[in-house]
Formats: sequence, structure tokens, C-alpha cells
Amino acid sequence: MTDSLGDWKRTHYSQELDEDMDGETVTLMGWVHEIRDLGGIIFVLLRDRNGITQITAPSKKITPELMEEIRKFKKESVIAVKGTIQGSPKAPGGVEVIPEEVKVLNESKQPLPLDPTEKVRAEIDTRLDSRYLDLRKHSISAIFKIKSTMLHSVRIFLEEKGFMEVNTPKLVGSATEGGTELFPITYFEREAFLGQSPQLYKQMMMATGLDKVFEIAPIFRAEEHDTLRHLNEVISIDAELAFADQEEAMELLEKLVHHAIKEVKENCQAELEDLGVELEVPELPFPRLEYDEVIDIVNSKGVQLQHGEDLSRAAEKALGEVMDGYYFITNWPSEIKPFYVQPHEDEPEKSYAFDLMYRDLEISSGATRVHQHDLLVKQIKSKGLNPDSFQRYLAAFEYGMPPHAGWGLGAERFTMCITGMKNIRETVLFPRDRRRLTP
Amino acid sequence: MTDSLGDWKRTHYSQELDEDMDGETVTLMGWVHEIRDLGGIIFVLLRDRNGITQITAPSKKITPELMEEIRKFKKESVIAVKGTIQGSPKAPGGVEVIPEEVKVLNESKQPLPLDPTEKVRAEIDTRLDSRYLDLRKHSISAIFKIKSTMLHSVRIFLEEKGFMEVNTPKLVGSATEGGTELFPITYFEREAFLGQSPQLYKQMMMATGLDKVFEIAPIFRAEEHDTLRHLNEVISIDAELAFADQEEAMELLEKLVHHAIKEVKENCQAELEDLGVELEVPELPFPRLEYDEVIDIVNSKGVQLQHGEDLSRAAEKALGEVMDGYYFITNWPSEIKPFYVQPHEDEPEKSYAFDLMYRDLEISSGATRVHQHDLLVKQIKSKGLNPDSFQRYLAAFEYGMPPHAGWGLGAERFTMCITGMKNIRETVLFPRDRRRLTP
Repeated sequence: MTDSLGDWKRTHYSQELDEDMDGETVTLMGWVHEIRDLGGIIFVLLRDRNGITQITAPSKKITPELMEEIRKFKKESVIAVKGTIQGSPKAPGGVEVIPEEVKVLNESKQPLPLDPTEKVRAEIDTRLDSRYLDLRKHSISAIFKIKSTMLHSVRIFLEEKGFMEVNTPKLVGSATEGGTELFPITYFEREAFLGQSPQLYKQMMMATGLDKVFEIAPIFRAEEHDTLRHLNEVISIDAELAFADQEEAMELLEKLVHHAIKEVKENCQAELEDLGVELEVPELPFPRLEYDEVIDIVNSKGVQLQHGEDLSRAAEKALGEVMDGYYFITNWPSEIKPFYVQPHEDEPEKSYAFDLMYRDLEISSGATRVHQHDLLVKQIKSKGLNPDSFQRYLAAFEYGMPPHAGWGLGAERFTMCITGMKNIRETVLFPRDRRRLTP
Repeated sequence: MTDSLGDWKRTHYSQELDEDMDGETVTLMGWVHEIRDLGGIIFVLLRDRNGITQITAPSKKITPELMEEIRKFKKESVIAVKGTIQGSPKAPGGVEVIPEEVKVLNESKQPLPLDPTEKVRAEIDTRLDSRYLDLRKHSISAIFKIKSTMLHSVRIFLEEKGFMEVNTPKLVGSATEGGTELFPITYFEREAFLGQSPQLYKQMMMATGLDKVFEIAPIFRAEEHDTLRHLNEVISIDAELAFADQEEAMELLEKLVHHAIKEVKENCQAELEDLGVELEVPELPFPRLEYDEVIDIVNSKGVQLQHGEDLSRAAEKALGEVMDGYYFITNWPSEIKPFYVQPHEDEPEKSYAFDLMYRDLEISSGATRVHQHDLLVKQIKSKGLNPDSFQRYLAAFEYGMPPHAGWGLGAERFTMCITGMKNIRETVLFPRDRRRLTP
């Protein structure tokens, strides 16, 4: 039997307790992290969101009934404890709580599929199957506190620069930008697809006069990859700005990355410590490498890369050995970039596309976009696509589309850079890949 | 032929100009809102994100070449103007700009499918087909500035209350909570579904120790409705809190609604004016009606409603005639609420579910959740569902799930309340309904 919450309210989190509160009555709620029964005295470690408090139950101070109740506690059960604070230099945080009343709010079955107190990490698949237990480890929840701090700081940064948040549809009517990477949906009597990027929508927003928009939302890619860097559903941070070119877009992006890292460093000290990460705020501006230079670097490291090829994994790794922090790759060949990327006026085989890299990991792609209707139609055709399936998108370019530029930044890949995680699955609560659709 | 942006940068938006800047050189960029050619003088209204500036081109002050360039301007083309500010009491904003150099950054085809300067609104379908033009009207973009301000204030409010933002998957493996309202996806070799709510995920997060989480993300419902209040893709604001009950969840929700409205009123004065809305900040706490009282009110208005029935549209309307602002309906019958809603201990036909209403519109549903594994299994069965398909979700209740409560608030419906819009499509940039999948 478990107890109901009744009128009990948590008064403090573990981390809010200190010696100055000696003698105060508090109500704590959390999980049984450890229990040590020495007969005449029982020690219980109560774990909550921010820390751990030692509950000390000596038989000479509390009733035999309460002693029995505490003795029956099971690891990872949910408990509430009303008690008195007592300074205790040996206890974590320098205080312990002498219980006066306890509740078992929910019991935990034994044994657990995953031990939240374990020192050695279980296999990632075991952990993801029982993600709710995995996240009880502060070294795991730290990743998500950092991710949410990063997202918060990104939003505030963009809003302060005059960007308006938009919500564009994830259900799309036609297979744009190709089509092999799209998940098909049955939409009533019709076929529809899941948006692989808000690209075409944020571009249409440039023809509205709103000028600067951003969106942070899921994107879906039916890629068959099974790597440490790809998932089929991720969060994309997208920004698009009118009356601007790739230089302004890159400057916005590097300042945003710089700002977000500074904010995480300032606001997530405990979490970075939990992860053992020494976070460095990168210097501005980030280095800019031209695509041609990249080829030379990669080839000099003994990895084959021909002009006109996209970076292979081997090429990225070779580059990552030379380039340590964040850097841009600019002036990509038009042929390996999407149709909406603006080619150089005088040398159309080169484009105004850029990628933002962190060591060997691509974290963002952006470009000056094509804003001229006729050139856009030409580029769509040259990629082997049919302009008819872009009818509504193309119309927006006929009635006053300003020059514009933008980028998409992968929230999970950026979180990997900040937290030092090597597997993108570590940065997603419930990752989706080819094999995993649950929980 | 159009001009390229080159090294031009916008120096000001229209609304930043005033008489004190007389004599200053500025660069403006925007759309040709109106053009009036009186021969010896041409007036151009340049419209940008925030306002309109009059460009005045008198032949005695500027070169014949420049006069000719300006004369060729077409309505809704994108232009950039370098010129000098001159005080002009008759012009909008009290200033005009005498051009020195102009660029046509992109031309607009004529006639336009929708006139952004029109006074009378076109049909909603025509407007949505050319949403990029529709949004050029400040009275339309105002809705989205208000929506983004609301979302911003909601996030800040929740973060300040200690809620952590989470991202839960939209691709789900099994048809939970029923199944008739789900869109099926082809997920590689398998069938998957689009999430109709983050409900089960935010509940699983309650077993992690993170305690307070929120998510603002799209949800997808395959409802066949064709009403002014339903869409198949909307943004849901979801919050879930551990060690809390429905009272605490309702208090959080009403304070959030109150805060968001206050913030919109303070930060969107011009937009509210554009919409002709006199926004009132509602008083706290919101009235609480019990379901049984609602039945009496509805019946007293001559609308049939039996105990145990959900509110019909007629019932909502009858209720809306009596209840003017925001109010809660509490103590719903368990039989019309989902399996995860906690029944009263002593009277299990009643539940701890609540709805938040604004007049005749339901904008949020919430409840104390069932946190006891065995009761949850029983409730799943009693709704005719199979506990086996909830295996991973149910596991989270076996190893220490605390009592918890939460709610989901419809971002678009809340935007309707704030902006006075009667059709939910007005509050979505690119709405998705049974008939509409484009643009």
C-alpha cells in the first residue's frame, strides 16, 4: 500500500538545505537512492532533482513504528519525509534530516532493469529502453539541462536581434527537395509527407515583410544511416533574414553559437562538472576556409577528395585533425548544394553556401538563397526536379521576394559539441532511428 | 532587370524615423505600397516590417535619370532607397525621404493575386493560397506577432517557475490513447504514427526526477472535423509537474494565462490596435464550475445535456452565454476522460480532470494523473484498450513514479482568445485541415 500526497507540499530541494537551517522543519520528496540499515540507526539517501539529502533515523530519537516504516523502504521508491534539519559535517551537503513523519508515495519493483546509482554505464540500448531510470543519474539529466539552456539562450539571442518566432507546418503536400528522404503519411484520402526542413516555408516568410524569422522544431528524415551522428527525427534551429547575404547570416550564426556557449558555461556549471566538461567559449570570428582549401588540407592528410565531391566521413575526420574548434567552409560547388542556393554571379559553378563545422562534425548549413524567380526555376530543373511541384513556393518569388539568406543549425549536434557526447542518441530523450521507435 | 543588394545595408526601419533626424542620410528597404506620379513629383510609399515611409521625388531636386527609375516602380516590388530625411507634417510619421539613389531588388508581377493594400478582406482560401501577400497587411502580421509574444512569455514564465523544456518524439511506434485520430506513417519497413499529444512522454518524464517539464511543439490529429476551431496540425503547450495535484496544475495554468495576456497587452500595443482589440487582463483566480453545475446551466438555457455526456457545441454555446471570461470546469465524469486521469478515491465515477474554457471555447485540458501502476492497467482495460501496447509507458510506473498532474494548452485557441479571431485558421501561418495541405 502506498500513501497519497494529501496536503503535503515539498518545502525544499536537497540543494537548498544548509547548516544555517539547523532545527528547521522541512518536507522533502524524492527517490530512495540508497538505504543502509545498521539496526539501531538507518541511513536513507533521498535523491531529488538537484541533489541528495541524508535522512538519519536513530532508534533512540524516533518511534519504533516510524523505524519500521523506514526499514521497509525500497531502493528507488518515491518517498516524502517531514523532519528536522541537523548540521552534520559528514553528510552530503553538511546536513542531515531527522524524520518525524514519512510517506511512501509509490513503491519500486525490485530488481530494477537499470540501476540509477550504478557507476559503470549500461549499454545505450538498455538505457534507452528504460530512459526514465537512466535520466535519474545526474550525469545524464545534465545533458538535457544543458540542451534546454542552449535552446533558451538561442531564442533570447534571436528575439533580441529582432527575429520573430514562427511555426511552419510539418505536414507537407508534396515531396520537395528531392523526395527519397521523406516519410510518407496517409492524410485522409491523400498521400502527404513529413517536413524534412522548414526551408521552403521560411523562404516564403521572406516575402511577407516580417524580414527576420526563426523556428525551433522537429524535422524528419527518412535516411537509412545508422551512425553516431544521424537520427530520423531531430530538432532544427532555423533562421532566415531578408535583405541580407551569406556574410550577415554567418555573422549571426557565429555570434549565436558564441552566445549560447557563454550562457551554458555561466548557467550550467554543476552540469558541466557532472559531465567532466571544461567548456571553452570560442573566439570570434570563426575561421573561414574555402572549399578549395579544404580539398588541399584533406588531400594533404592522405585522404582522396576530388573537386565537386561532398565531404566523405574520412575527409571530415582528416579535416578535424587540422581544425580544432568551430570554423566555416565557404564557396561550395553549386552542383552539391540544393537548388535554392545562390550561385556566384560571375562563376556559377561556385555558390554562396556555407557549412559550420566543429572539428569533424557539420553542425549547420546555410547560404544566400536564390531570390530571382527565373533563376530558381532554372536551378530546380537543373537538379532534375519538376517546377510544377513547387508552384505555391515559386509564386512567392513572383510578387516581391527580397534578397535573403539563412541557415539551419542542428540542436542535437550542437549539444554534442557542448557536452562532448560522441553519440547523438545521448542528446535526445527518446531517439528515433531505423531500429528504434520506442519508448 | 533587377539590382543586387551589393554592399547596401538597411540603416533604419520606417518606425525609427522622426523629425529630429532632418538632414540625415538613411537607407530604407521594403515594398512599394503605393505610387502616385504627378508628373513633376512622384510619391512612393515604402512599406517595411513596422511601418510606411513616404519617398518624395520632386523633379526639381533630383536627376531626370533617377526620376525615370522611380517612375518605373511597380506596386509590391522590392526596393531600396538611399536618401535624406526631411520633416514633413503631412507625411505618415512626420517625415519624408528625398531619394538620392534607388535599387529595384526584385520586381512584382502585375496584377497581384491578392492586394496587400486592400481594405476589404478577401476570402480566407484566397488569402491562404497567397499567404505571403496576405501577411504583408499589418492587421494580419499583427496576429503572428501576438502569437510569438504569447509563446515567448509562456516559456519565460515556465522557466522562471523551474520548468525544463523537453523535446519528445513526434514519431511514435504504437497507436496509443485509442487510435482513430492518428495519422499512419510508413517508417521504413514498419508502420508508425504521428504523435497526437506528448501525454505519455511527459508522464514518463515524471519518473526521471526532473519534476517539472514543458514542451511547445506540434501535435497531429486525424480528426475529420471541418470547423472553425479544429485543425489537423496545431501547436500544443504542454506542462507536467511531479508531486502535485490538479489544484496546483490549475493554479499554474491560470497564472500562466494571466501572465501571457499581461505581456501581450504591454508589448503588442500597436498590434492590438491594428486588430481593434481592447485586451483585458483577466482577474485571478479564474472561476471554477463543477461539471454538475455546468449541466444545470446548460439545461437552464434550454439545451439538452445528460450527466455523463461531453459538452456538445450547443452546450458550449449555451455556457458561453452565461460565462464571459476564462473559467475552469472541474470534476468531470471519469467515463468521458482518458485512462490516465485520476478518479476520485471515494467516488471513482468522478475524476480530477479539468478543462479551461474561454467563453464557449475549450482551450486546455488537464488533470491529476493516475500514478499507480495497477490502477492504470485497470483503467486502460476499462477503456477497451490493450495494456500490452503500453508496455514501455507502464514500465515507468513500476519503478518509482511520483504523483503528478499537468495540462495541455492549445496555442492557436489561446491566440484566438487574445486576438478575437473566430476562425482558428487566422492564427496559423499555413493551416492544415482535411482539404488543405498547401502551401
